[in-house]
Amino acid sequence: MKRLHTTQSDFEADFAALLEARTGVETSVTEPVRDIIADIRQRGDDALRDYTARFDRLTLSPDKIRIGADEIAREADRVDADLMEALNVAAQRIEVFHAQQLPENLEYTDDAGLTLGMRWTALDAVGLYVPGGKAAYPSSVLMNALPAKVAGVERIAMCVPCPDGVLNPLVLAAARVCGVTEIYRVGGAQAVAALAYGTNAIAPVDRIVGPGNAYVAEAKRQVFGHVGIDSIAGPSEVLVVADAENNPRFVALDLLAQAEHDELAQAVLITNDSAFADKVAAAVEAELKTLPRAAIAARSWADHGAIIVVRDWDEAAAIANRLAPEHLEVMLNAPEDFAAKVRHAGAMFLGRFCPEAVGDYVGGPNHVLPTSRTARFASGLSVFDFLKRTTSIATGPDGLRRVGPAGVALARAEGLGAHALSLSARLDELGWNER
Amino acid sequence: MKRLHTTQSDFEADFAALLEARTGVETSVTEPVRDIIADIRQRGDDALRDYTARFDRLTLSPDKIRIGADEIAREADRVDADLMEALNVAAQRIEVFHAQQLPENLEYTDDAGLTLGMRWTALDAVGLYVPGGKAAYPSSVLMNALPAKVAGVERIAMCVPCPDGVLNPLVLAAARVCGVTEIYRVGGAQAVAALAYGTNAIAPVDRIVGPGNAYVAEAKRQVFGHVGIDSIAGPSEVLVVADAENNPRFVALDLLAQAEHDELAQAVLITNDSAFADKVAAAVEAELKTLPRAAIAARSWADHGAIIVVRDWDEAAAIANRLAPEHLEVMLNAPEDFAAKVRHAGAMFLGRFCPEAVGDYVGGPNHVLPTSRTARFASGLSVFDFLKRTTSIATGPDGLRRVGPAGVALARAEGLGAHALSLSARLDELGWNER
Repeated sequence: MKRLHTTQSDFEADFAALLEARTGVETSVTEPVRDIIADIRQRGDDALRDYTARFDRLTLSPDKIRIGADEIAREADRVDADLMEALNVAAQRIEVFHAQQLPENLEYTDDAGLTLGMRWTALDAVGLYVPGGKAAYPSSVLMNALPAKVAGVERIAMCVPCPDGVLNPLVLAAARVCGVTEIYRVGGAQAVAALAYGTNAIAPVDRIVGPGNAYVAEAKRQVFGHVGIDSIAGPSEVLVVADAENNPRFVALDLLAQAEHDELAQAVLITNDSAFADKVAAAVEAELKTLPRAAIAARSWADHGAIIVVRDWDEAAAIANRLAPEHLEVMLNAPEDFAAKVRHAGAMFLGRFCPEAVGDYVGGPNHVLPTSRTARFASGLSVFDFLKRTTSIATGPDGLRRVGPAGVALARAEGLGAHALSLSARLDELGWNER
Repeated sequence: MKRLHTTQSDFEADFAALLEARTGVETSVTEPVRDIIADIRQRGDDALRDYTARFDRLTLSPDKIRIGADEIAREADRVDADLMEALNVAAQRIEVFHAQQLPENLEYTDDAGLTLGMRWTALDAVGLYVPGGKAAYPSSVLMNALPAKVAGVERIAMCVPCPDGVLNPLVLAAARVCGVTEIYRVGGAQAVAALAYGTNAIAPVDRIVGPGNAYVAEAKRQVFGHVGIDSIAGPSEVLVVADAENNPRFVALDLLAQAEHDELAQAVLITNDSAFADKVAAAVEAELKTLPRAAIAARSWADHGAIIVVRDWDEAAAIANRLAPEHLEVMLNAPEDFAAKVRHAGAMFLGRFCPEAVGDYVGGPNHVLPTSRTARFASGLSVFDFLKRTTSIATGPDGLRRVGPAGVALARAEGLGAHALSLSARLDELGWNER
């Protein structure tokens, strides 16, 4: 863990190093992923089965690529009732929040007599990637599938790797809660390629969303353009802004909740009180003694953790904007005042009783959020990821008479003769007297 | 030009070939672009100047990378008054339409006592790529810069290649109309890399938009993730749906207005009348005799043009959805009825007096639109490209008591102990009696 203080003379250099350490991560899987995608495009399901055998140690006959309804039901039924209830609470809250996001169509007729519009429509088909192994989270299924469902997407195709053939009952139960029934037991770059280009077993989709490892991220990057993708997710991050009135243990647990995700995760505390910083640091060490995922969390905290002591909250807000954190907890009095100063953050958690984990599960807003400072330009997953816009212009002769001549002038200036003629031929028929 | 009829027995194969011919385009510039980006990151302005000398035959001293205010004014002043007036008409209409797109923030307190929100904020800095040479269109400057300005972006940095050092007065005049003053005379992958990673002369931006050649498109693809980008633009397309009541010459000119963009552009007519199809085909040939860009348009029409004769308009709508065209003209009675059946299109132009060129310049909606069937999942440029969302959850003890226990159950099920503890430690303090 790095300890910084804005009063240090070398604060700027230390802080820059902290930022830089997070942005220098490069993947080196470009070529293998390119080969996998080409192979899937060429050999389809045969290639998909080969890679699944190699990477997941799972031999699939063609009719077993898709998980059967009976298997889904059997596995999902193993989840105990309390947990199903928790999944349902989460799903209901996520669905309600995302329904609030649904935008309105636009249509108006302006002074020139043109009727202008913008209409939102849902994508036809979406691919949902769910990681396998240690990161197979049912909450991730809810967060990816429900916005698509709320947006009105008719077909949601889910891919989840099942190493050694082991199905994850929680993931399948979460899919059932979302009404997702089309599920394939494949993963990695091969699953992304199959979703993008289609195989015999898997019809192609229009957009692929969901987190994954470096191979999955690189595959999404490579199929981008042929299909849509969501943001490329990096390691998770939290910035906690807290004053000395907080319980240091709560702050420590919030930092560790990020750190336990991944050794590359980053947890940063900003406080205005050096003694409080010490207390939090001590509480982190104390909790690490008993935490189940202590090894991962300790590594993350040691390598990427930081405590920054600031003079005041304006300074804290400026630092928050430079970090553009995925998650921002504001544990201050009147947290809304601080939040108003933050321009770049994926999601904010306001109040001393609002840990980030609320948002991971049951808050309502999405937990798929921009990482690695991409909150500067990117947003969390939402219904907007599953909608697209079609604009429209409608006009008769009167509107064309008003706006057409300026269009002719611009088309001619750009040297586009047919553009100009397509306007001027009609204007001529309407009796245009060109100067 | 291909002529198809839906009554043919082999229509499906012919139509599939038409679709496939457009999606098979692959770029082979991955490696050179990767090298250029790495070089810009390492050598900054020196590399930028080297590539500009090599590709644009232009030797730049470091202080000439940016175009001076005096040069911009001198060049822009050369544009004649009528054309400036046309630019202003276009800019004003584009600005008004995009202002209508500005979304509302969301905030509500739900039954559980949590206050949930979603706030839109503008990006800090945007890079605008403007192609040089034959595709240096002032309208493109308006269409890219104005949505950013309307969204509230404070810094817009424009790059435009100036082969042999020649400045384009119209492009600079368009920039002036938009209030863009930060303009660099560099282009290609090197300009995209400079905008993404920054050099001494060019501060980095958060998102890069604007059309370009294969190098520019590949560079945008490679910097995606570090910065945001817009869609990767392919060759332009139009689908015209027209009945026999139309003037065949108008239809022909509309088809040619797409064809003249690029030899790879695609113009498709769908009609229900074979004799009308003949008339349009003849009109295309007639116009090609006098069109300034006849060579390009003829190539495009020969290689990629198509006329599809359908039985009825429902069939036409189904084909339109499969084509997911960038531009859709509907030259029918009650064009809105047809438009309502189309789910996938970048922009629609409704009526017999509403050629696509209206939308290129003076309609108001954006002319930067999804190509190559990406309207299935992508949208035209808009203020949304220059905004991002931050969600928020605010709660005190009461809200946490209501939703926290479900969160604890899910966190434990996912094996994330610190997540569970960050919730349960607070719940315990609030006197939670866990069953």
